Amino acid sequence: MSALFGGPLSVLNVGLASFAEPIAARGGTATQLDWAPPAAGDRAAGAALAKLVGDPRVEAANAKAADLYLAAQPRLTGIGRAGEVLPKMGKRMILHAGPPIEWKRMCGPMQGAIAGAILYEGWAGDAARARAMAASGDVAFDSCHHHAAVGPMAGIISPSMPVWRVANPAHGNQSFCNLNEGLGKVLRFGANSAEVIARLKWMEKTLAPTLAAGLAQLGELELKPLMAQALHMGDEVHNRNVAASSLLIRRLAPALLKSTAPAADVAAAIEFIAGNDHFFLNLSMAACKAMLDAAHGVAGSSMVTAMARNGVDFGIRVSGLGAQWFTAAAPVVDGLYFSGYGKQDAAADLGDSAITETAGLGGFAMAAAPAIVKFVGGTPQDALANTLAMTHITLRRNGAFTLPALDFAGTPAGIDARRVVDTGILPVINTGIAHQEPGVGQIGAGVTRAPLECFSKAVLRMAQP
Amino acid sequence: MSALFGGPLSVLNVGLASFAEPIAARGGTATQLDWAPPAAGDRAAGAALAKLVGDPRVEAANAKAADLYLAAQPRLTGIGRAGEVLPKMGKRMILHAGPPIEWKRMCGPMQGAIAGAILYEGWAGDAARARAMAASGDVAFDSCHHHAAVGPMAGIISPSMPVWRVANPAHGNQSFCNLNEGLGKVLRFGANSAEVIARLKWMEKTLAPTLAAGLAQLGELELKPLMAQALHMGDEVHNRNVAASSLLIRRLAPALLKSTAPAADVAAAIEFIAGNDHFFLNLSMAACKAMLDAAHGVAGSSMVTAMARNGVDFGIRVSGLGAQWFTAAAPVVDGLYFSGYGKQDAAADLGDSAITETAGLGGFAMAAAPAIVKFVGGTPQDALANTLAMTHITLRRNGAFTLPALDFAGTPAGIDARRVVDTGILPVINTGIAHQEPGVGQIGAGVTRAPLECFSKAVLRMAQP
Repeated sequence: MSALFGGPLSVLNVGLASFAEPIAARGGTATQLDWAPPAAGDRAAGAALAKLVGDPRVEAANAKAADLYLAAQPRLTGIGRAGEVLPKMGKRMILHAGPPIEWKRMCGPMQGAIAGAILYEGWAGDAARARAMAASGDVAFDSCHHHAAVGPMAGIISPSMPVWRVANPAHGNQSFCNLNEGLGKVLRFGANSAEVIARLKWMEKTLAPTLAAGLAQLGELELKPLMAQALHMGDEVHNRNVAASSLLIRRLAPALLKSTAPAADVAAAIEFIAGNDHFFLNLSMAACKAMLDAAHGVAGSSMVTAMARNGVDFGIRVSGLGAQWFTAAAPVVDGLYFSGYGKQDAAADLGDSAITETAGLGGFAMAAAPAIVKFVGGTPQDALANTLAMTHITLRRNGAFTLPALDFAGTPAGIDARRVVDTGILPVINTGIAHQEPGVGQIGAGVTRAPLECFSKAVLRMAQP
Repeated sequence: MSALFGGPLSVLNVGLASFAEPIAARGGTATQLDWAPPAAGDRAAGAALAKLVGDPRVEAANAKAADLYLAAQPRLTGIGRAGEVLPKMGKRMILHAGPPIEWKRMCGPMQGAIAGAILYEGWAGDAARARAMAASGDVAFDSCHHHAAVGPMAGIISPSMPVWRVANPAHGNQSFCNLNEGLGKVLRFGANSAEVIARLKWMEKTLAPTLAAGLAQLGELELKPLMAQALHMGDEVHNRNVAASSLLIRRLAPALLKSTAPAADVAAAIEFIAGNDHFFLNLSMAACKAMLDAAHGVAGSSMVTAMARNGVDFGIRVSGLGAQWFTAAAPVVDGLYFSGYGKQDAAADLGDSAITETAGLGGFAMAAAPAIVKFVGGTPQDALANTLAMTHITLRRNGAFTLPALDFAGTPAGIDARRVVDTGILPVINTGIAHQEPGVGQIGAGVTRAPLECFSKAVLRMAQP
């Protein structure tokens, strides 16, 4: 012992950095190893994890779930009216983003958007009556995810709204997403003024039938190759969709011009789409939902098949754990705020768009999109680092989505809830930030993390007999 | 001396690697420093260089030339008929890529393209007569560059052809480029069959007036911001133009649909443009030509203002050396050949498109376009390395063209002929490869280098009293 302390010390310090500080202060050398106990020290979750790690049944189930995700071939098949094409959509039902939530717990933008949807449907004549109706229980609310659907931000889908229809013939499942309204005063940020409702009506009456005619002319559109190409053009197809939107319009415009749709409607549709860099986002989300629903329901699998936020709760679903949501408080995003706004103005993390990260895109594919750091913060090196970090918590690389900057390696995909709890590495999410007041709109963008608690709860549930 | 060799040797070997080998063979340590004498050991060029390096008059002239290049704001102003809008275009004149060359020395694709242009103009009734006419001297040939114009590959511009018109109001100069025909059997690769001529006629009679109507609706289009955005989307706007072409169609399509052009022509124009990932190339070239012509003619400047190839000669022009070309044999490109073709089938390096590299784009901006290596060969690391290497031979970074992968540094731009000779670092060029027989078309793509000899000749000329 005395011999040990007689010579100069060279210490490897694992975990808490404060233990290394007195050594350094006295002239010793201490190398700090970044380590934290599994489940952030939660004993119960750690014990559950110990049962699951290395379990060959979980490994086999995860291999199957990951294969189903990888084999998916989402195709845009058309456009439909939500009330007609969503199998379980009620007549007076409104779908929203994230895990289920009751009216009084909803965040401002979601309440505003629901009031807007009630006005849009003509169920009430003004915003005050719409809110009263929503509070009264006269309208049923449900998660988009319970209907194979997704929606960005508030994620509102009401029966008359048009939705993209995506099919995955490899597994026989379908998915749906509403259409992107553009930026500014829009329903998904809680705005419900007359101009918002008028735009939604135009989307229903003009844009949707025009797009339907164009899609009929174009035929089914394979979404994975288009998304893969966009990754080679600087998109991560969550918070940056300029390439994918541009590629889509190149495919759609000639088809629209050959279609049976009236020329004036075609011109208006093309102008509307061409003016919106995020138009593709909702198709990216539907494609991701189709890929992940294919992987859902594999008994024993710890693969995460949904991450979604309602502005109050952050929830995940896991392939082997059925319809159950595992939730935690949704964080407020520490991002780049637009001039005049700050964290104090922000709603908590909101929207179904984290389905893209769940599918290995968005923050997981940030290495494809170095230019996005001007929008979400950080450096191009951070973008690479985020993608590389996600390899530690995912089951596979998706060879259909390659990353040029990483020598064409596939995106890390298929989050293993066990590995998140084990490593403490939290799924990274690129996201827009909504103002907490309905209708103000987007006030920033940033990189956020899924809360560990969701994954710990899922692991605890998995380990139950 | 004996003391030196008594202990173990640690040698720094500068230049020829073979001197280090015997040291290593006897167990010594020799670090190899990659170095070559200036001008590759050419004594006359080296002596000329010694006069020019550090000369404050050259430095001041280069600063002025580089500023003029950086200040350029090329705008697409419209489309016109070459014979009407090119100020010095003769009635029976055909312009071609690269430095001037007489008919009998021209490469196969250029001869084929000229025969095609004669047929297209109706000056001869069949290809044999067209070739006889070209050989007879009845048609005048001139370099595109002598008319503020550029053209990819054979670069043929005849009087009836439509050309893009680009203006640089910052300097008061204009530039021109022909329109991209697409891939396959096209004039620029020397094809001159009936389908090729019919397409050119359609471009003249339908596409050009339709685009003119669309541009009249759109107004003048700033090209630099569009190119800058494309660099953030994986293009280097020479050999990869998918993003720029997509962004262009997003701007053009709504304008075309609002224009006075007939609906059927608009639909045909949009389909034609949407089908061609390289449609923007010719606009990129015209923009680069406008930026560099602004920098041309500064007395005493060693800044390169054009690099161009006619398939036989590689030529450069230098800001302070007037209209003179400094030429060397055009190299055959050692690239990725399409299946069934190899270097033995290739024409030597061809086309005015190296104007993009001269302007700091193309190979110089390869760091923006890692995915291009699947087309031109190499790895994404090579792409970064090419851009970084070019910083040693350029005068500036162009802050208008930033590279996300290099922390948003500007592209290296403004080639200094002195530095090329001094360092032996040759300008890198991304290029397509034409078959040596006219009309076969593109048979590959690759990365090539401008020949040192062009720059040595320019430096020798500069040093003359």
